[in-house]
Parts: sequence; structure tokens; C-alpha cells
Amino acid sequence: MSIEQALTYLQTHQDRFLAELEALLRIPSVSTTPDHGSDIARAANWVADNLRAMGARRVAVYPTARHPVVYGEMPASRPDAPTVLIYGHYDVQPPDPLGLWETPPFEPTVRGERLYARGATDMKGQVMASLKAVEAAAHAGLPVNIKFVIEGEEEIGSPDLAGFIADHKEMLAADVCLNPDAGMLGPDWPTITYGLRGLAYFELRVYGPAHDLHSGIYGGVVHNPAQALAELLAGMHDEHGRVTLPGFYDKVRPISEEERRALAQLPFDPEAFYLQQTGVPKLWGEPEYTPVERTGARPTLEINGLYSGYIAEGAKTVIPSYAMAKISCRLVPDQDPEEVAEQLKAYLTAHAPDTIRWELDVMDGAPASMTSLNTPGVQALAQAMQATWGRKPFYRREGGSIPVVGQMQQILGLDSVLTGFGLPDANLHAPNENLHLPTWRKGMEALVRFFYAFAEAAA
Amino acid sequence: MSIEQALTYLQTHQDRFLAELEALLRIPSVSTTPDHGSDIARAANWVADNLRAMGARRVAVYPTARHPVVYGEMPASRPDAPTVLIYGHYDVQPPDPLGLWETPPFEPTVRGERLYARGATDMKGQVMASLKAVEAAAHAGLPVNIKFVIEGEEEIGSPDLAGFIADHKEMLAADVCLNPDAGMLGPDWPTITYGLRGLAYFELRVYGPAHDLHSGIYGGVVHNPAQALAELLAGMHDEHGRVTLPGFYDKVRPISEEERRALAQLPFDPEAFYLQQTGVPKLWGEPEYTPVERTGARPTLEINGLYSGYIAEGAKTVIPSYAMAKISCRLVPDQDPEEVAEQLKAYLTAHAPDTIRWELDVMDGAPASMTSLNTPGVQALAQAMQATWGRKPFYRREGGSIPVVGQMQQILGLDSVLTGFGLPDANLHAPNENLHLPTWRKGMEALVRFFYAFAEAAA
Repeated sequence: MSIEQALTYLQTHQDRFLAELEALLRIPSVSTTPDHGSDIARAANWVADNLRAMGARRVAVYPTARHPVVYGEMPASRPDAPTVLIYGHYDVQPPDPLGLWETPPFEPTVRGERLYARGATDMKGQVMASLKAVEAAAHAGLPVNIKFVIEGEEEIGSPDLAGFIADHKEMLAADVCLNPDAGMLGPDWPTITYGLRGLAYFELRVYGPAHDLHSGIYGGVVHNPAQALAELLAGMHDEHGRVTLPGFYDKVRPISEEERRALAQLPFDPEAFYLQQTGVPKLWGEPEYTPVERTGARPTLEINGLYSGYIAEGAKTVIPSYAMAKISCRLVPDQDPEEVAEQLKAYLTAHAPDTIRWELDVMDGAPASMTSLNTPGVQALAQAMQATWGRKPFYRREGGSIPVVGQMQQILGLDSVLTGFGLPDANLHAPNENLHLPTWRKGMEALVRFFYAFAEAAA
Repeated sequence: MSIEQALTYLQTHQDRFLAELEALLRIPSVSTTPDHGSDIARAANWVADNLRAMGARRVAVYPTARHPVVYGEMPASRPDAPTVLIYGHYDVQPPDPLGLWETPPFEPTVRGERLYARGATDMKGQVMASLKAVEAAAHAGLPVNIKFVIEGEEEIGSPDLAGFIADHKEMLAADVCLNPDAGMLGPDWPTITYGLRGLAYFELRVYGPAHDLHSGIYGGVVHNPAQALAELLAGMHDEHGRVTLPGFYDKVRPISEEERRALAQLPFDPEAFYLQQTGVPKLWGEPEYTPVERTGARPTLEINGLYSGYIAEGAKTVIPSYAMAKISCRLVPDQDPEEVAEQLKAYLTAHAPDTIRWELDVMDGAPASMTSLNTPGVQALAQAMQATWGRKPFYRREGGSIPVVGQMQQILGLDSVLTGFGLPDANLHAPNENLHLPTWRKGMEALVRFFYAFAEAAA
């Protein structure tokens, strides 16, 4: 068996791999709203069929309380090989706001070097890179056992995955978890992620009058719930961009000087990079931390959605009966999502006036996670990336949240190696999500090399 | 000619009058959004046809830049009679939020003593009360000349009415303007309104990133526009409920001690009344003014709508690219809507951070108005109300805005007599708008009596 043979297989089957990715992207497997149940089932079955077609064994679609988990195995071509558990998710974020897409979100379209579709980078593209890298390596002789766990609930916080893992500990036993749901700093900058932020997501509703009121007749005697909500939201940060929830920073692990120096090793100017990627007129946030620290190693509180009253075209002179905000916190070690929920409740209890009523829904949560850099998995991936891109990878803490990383550690005792081949301008969770195809193809090469390097490192 | 004959006519035709009102209410003549053009035209033609059917002359539907004005005349049965110009509007507010209506907004439904439909009280019910009172009085012999001006743009601030009035000064010449677009304090409390608040309506948009961002990847370096908007909105009131726009109160006419005493003459406890009508847990507003003063004689700033990011069911971890608020101020003498727009711009210029961009649309505006109580029109209406309800009317300042009152004064030199037969719990501009039918019928009686009393007073 030889790496070269596997890489040649990759080269000669690129057109089919792209067509398969496009087929998966056409299925609108949105998990965050309840109206895509059949699409979710369709996507799960599609992945299972693809696994079967490439020769996987024990392929099954396991139902859960919500969306099914797809499982499959590819055995190594030699005995005593180590096992890599590959994690992925086939669900995607909603495509809203639809009007801002240049081409429809579920009609994958190649423009230039990029493939545009919801889920192209997050993470159907990464799932297919993993499946096809395994297919190529299997053609040449797989040096490791592969187990796939492809879930359908990542975008809603993976509520059923922990139960599935706990129920199938033996089946899922492995030496490392490869999780390609992270990304790269740029097309020439291979990246290994060693830290992820956690998440706590809330919906806050402020209720005022029993029904919408005429603002002329009642304006002046009722606390407008949209105004009360604005007041509560405005108070959740101080003037330096720090979150004001009581105790919010108590358990935040400080960043060591050594780590600050390491995080500052970047191939670009982070301020210019973030300005260019976001298009904001000026960066914002805690002044005593760098932009890289603020997005990776510091917690945040964001308003994800805001609604009250009349929002269509034109004017309506109404005092709304209620106002709603979706709010989420990105968490860092050692914050606890349940404690953060209590902190938000404590803030609201302390600051909500008695002129309104409020309700808080705690929607989902997961703690942050960190991976040691001295593991065979990380070292094998670093070696594979250097061979593919001709340079050592960058190590970073990523601001996103992947709850499964913590679950793999807690339930299976498995370290995760976090990577992925999406770029910062892939528009994740946003209109015109896209996948940079040259980087995607290099990613498959790197994964093939990783399997061989890990077989050696773990030997 | 006799009042009794006219009142008998009213009694015997109530079923038809209600059926005619229901027919008008079935036309969804929403003026605030651009998608009801044909309904607007239908409503205008329906009113014109109804005028023709009751014998009106010179009936015409006059086009304007937006929605047409319906005109018609009913001559007095004797020479040298004074002329009453009756104002009304056939347009209505949007029915949103649709889901909160117990029966569909454009399918008028009687439940108990009330008729439920959008526009039932504001103001198709008042328009039909006026038409049918004139029809009844005409049957008995009209003591005054009547001119009707029924416009279709009141709910968007009457932008074309001033031009129409100026172009038809001679046609519209009259001795008084009867405007039944105000309301009553309660079914047993006839009410004459002598003050109205003005309006200034705005849409404020705050722009952050060039497109929606993943809150994990970018959370911590961009000023979330929903948060920036919340901060700007929260700062528009101080902790006592006073508006903080620079110079906002400079031109507010103080309330005299005499007027404060008069406004305090109410047949009920205003605090209990407002709590009951609104369903809020506690009243709010400037502590040094009573609730009646705050809703009638003090200016306000309200948030009428709020939007940003993801507002559907479930969770989406997005930093929105923009956030929007609809904001309106109710104005009192001698505030100027254009000056208030400048004050809001000055506030935003002073307080908007350089981490976001903002845009302000000035949507419409009208100054407040006041009517003298010593006019023949007000005195005739007071007499008619006392004869109908057996008690003297209450005089009040109403918080709503009726731009035409100022226009009638400025262009035609006409005082307006402001009344109307809607109740405080009629849910104007809100779901389940309704009309209290016994009060509506008494209102028609009062109008018939008003025509006779005014003919006498003006003689």
C-alpha cells in the first residue's frame, strides 16, 4: 500500500467527488427549524448510501429523539492498526436571509474557485473530504481502522449525541477522534485548532401591555417593552465591551503570557484581516486583549435576533405588547453554560423594572474545550499538513463551538484533532456560504497523509 | 322638519346601517403598505356610491399623488343655513399581527355588543355614523348644509390632503369642521377633544458588518449592530422616562394650573383605568405629571418596531449585519416635527459610536393642535351630547394625532369640533379592533342633534 497510489486516486476522481458533494448540498437538511424533518432523513440516508457505495461495513442510520446519527466502518488493510473515529454533521444552518444569496442556497453553484451553497463549508464539504480521503486510502490499502459518526444535530447543539455515544461506547472505541469542523486561517496557512469556545443560547421575551396599543392614546403611561428590552440589552455590556452579567468572568481561565505570544504568531495583520473579513468601519471589543484573543480565548455575549412590533414597510403607530431578543454567549474554559444561564437570570432579576414582565428560555449550551498539542493525533496531522502545504501549521483557538469535542473526551476518553478546510471568508451561517475548492482538494490529500502518519505515530 | 322624525328614521334603519358598515369594513383599505392600491380604490368608490345612494350631490372621487379623496354635498332644506364640513378617512392600519385576531380583521363579526374588524372604530364606524346621521336628518329636513371630505391617507399622515384642500378652497368653504376621529372616555361619558398631539415618525437603521457573521468566529471583534441599536435606543430616555433628545422639551408649552385642574376632572380613577385598559403590571412615565397629562399634554418617544438577525423559531448563532427600529414621537404645542427630526439626528450624531454606521429616514410628521372651547361648534356639540346622554360632556386632550385639524385651520380658517364614538378599549391599531354598537348608535343621535343645535347657534 502506498500514499502515492491513494493521492493519484484522489486526483483522478475529483469530478465525481465534487458531483457527490453537490448532491448532498442539494438536500436542505436544516436542523434548527422543525419543518425539515424529511430533508434531514434524506440527508442521513444519502450519507449512509455513500458510505455503503465506498465499501463501508456496519453502516446504519440510528434514530435518536430528534435527528438520526449515521454510522459506518472501514477496516484497516492490516491487523493491529489503530482506529480513527471521524466526526461530522450533515445538518446545516437555516439559509435566511434568503434575499441576500446570489444563487439559491440549495442549488450548489461553482463561481471561480468556489462552490456556493448552504453547508458547503459547514460542514458537508468537510464530511465529503473525509469520506473521499478514506475511499482513496482504502483503494491503496487503509493503514488505520476508520469509524464514521455523522450526526444531524450539530447546529442545534448536539442534544442527542452524548446519549448515542454513551449507548455505543464499544462500537465507537478508537485511538483518536478526527474532527474536521474547524477551519484554516487562509488557503496557504494550514491550521490546527486546539481550543474551542462553548455556547449558551437564550431567548429573552419582555412583555408590556396585554395587547398592542395605539401609541397616541397610551404613549406616556406604559413602559414600551421594546424600549425596556433595549435598556436591558444595552446594560449587558459596559463601555469597554465587557459583559456585565454578575460573575461572568469569575471562572474564565486567564491567558498565559506564553500562550499570548503563541497566539500572536500569525501570517497576517489580524486587525486588517478582521476589518477586511467583516467590513465593519472599526473593530470593537475588550481593549486589553488582541482581536485573536477576543475571538478565541475570551467569552462574549451577542444579540442574534431582535423583534418587536411593526417591522414591514411603512409606518404603524403601535406600542408593541412584547419584544424578543435571541442572545448567545460564547464561553471559554472554565465557564459552565448552566452557570451562565443563572448569571443572565440574576442580571435580569436585578435590572428588569417592575413595569414589564420577562421570560427567559435557555435553549442550548455546551462548555468550551481545549486539546493538548503533544498527542500522536495532533503531531500526525501537523506532519501531514507540512507535507501537503510545504509549511508548518498554525495553532489557534477557534471562536466557534463544537459540543461533541467535550463529549468525546468525557464519554470515550478520546482526544479530538480539530482541523477543517474552510476559509475565513466562507460565510458560515450567512448568505453565500462557500467552499474554496483548491483548499478542499488539498485537505483531502492532507487527510490521506494523516491516516498514514497516525498509523506510524500510534504504532 | 323635526329632530324626532330624524331620530325615528335612525331607529328604524339600524339593521341596514350596520350592514353597510360591515360592507365597508370588508374592504382591506390599508394605506401604510403599497400592496393595497386596488382595495383603497374600492373603498373610495364604495363611499362615493353610498353618498350618491343617500342623495348627495357633486359626489366625486378626486385622485391625489397617492390615495383619492371622496367628496360629496347634502344641501340644507332651507336657505341661509350654515355649513358643516365633515371630515373622515376610509383607510385603515395594517392588521398585523394577524395571529392575535380572534376573527379575521376583514370579516366583521358581532360578538356581544361589539363589532370586531380593522377600522371598526378607526374610523369607518365614525364615517358611517356621520353619513347615516346626515341621511336621517335629511329625511326629516336638513337644518345645515353638509360637505363630506373622506380621505384615504390618514394612517400615513395625510400627505396629500393639504394640497387637495388648498386646491378646493371654495368648494370646501364652511362654518365649522366636524371631525369624529377622536373618541369617548367610556360608554356613559360623552367626550369633546380640544387638544391633539402631533407626530414625527422615523426609521433608524444601524449597519455593522457587510454581511451576517458567524458569532463564534467573529464574536468579540465587531460591535453587534443589534447591540449598538439597543444602546442608542436605551439612551433616548433618562431614568425618569424623560426623552433625552437635545432640545426636545424647549418648545413644549407648559400646562397651566387651571388646565391641570380641568384635566383632573374625570369620572374615574385614571391610574386604575390605564392599568385596566393596558394590562401592564405598573404605569410608567414622567413622575411629575399625571397619567392624563402624560398621554395628552406631554410629548413621547416610542419604539414602534424592532428587527435584527434571526427571529424565527430555534437558534441561529449569527452576528446580524444590521438592525432596524421604527421610532415615533407624539408632539404637543409648540413642538415642530422638523425640529424634532433634527434633534434626533443630533442625538445620533453625538451618541452613535464609530464602530457602526447609521441611517435615519424621516417618514412623516404633523404638529399638535388645540381648539378653543368657546366656539359655536363646540357648544352645539356639548348641547347635543347632553341631550343624548343626559350629562355634560368631558373635555380632554387626546394623545393621538390628526394632521387634518391643523390643515383645516391653516388653509380654510376652520375650527374643528373633535369627537367620536369609539371607546378606550376599542383596540385601535391593534388586533381585535372593535366598535361598541350601543355607543355608535347614540353617536348618530348626538350628531343629528348637533346639526340642529349648530344651525341655531350659528344663526
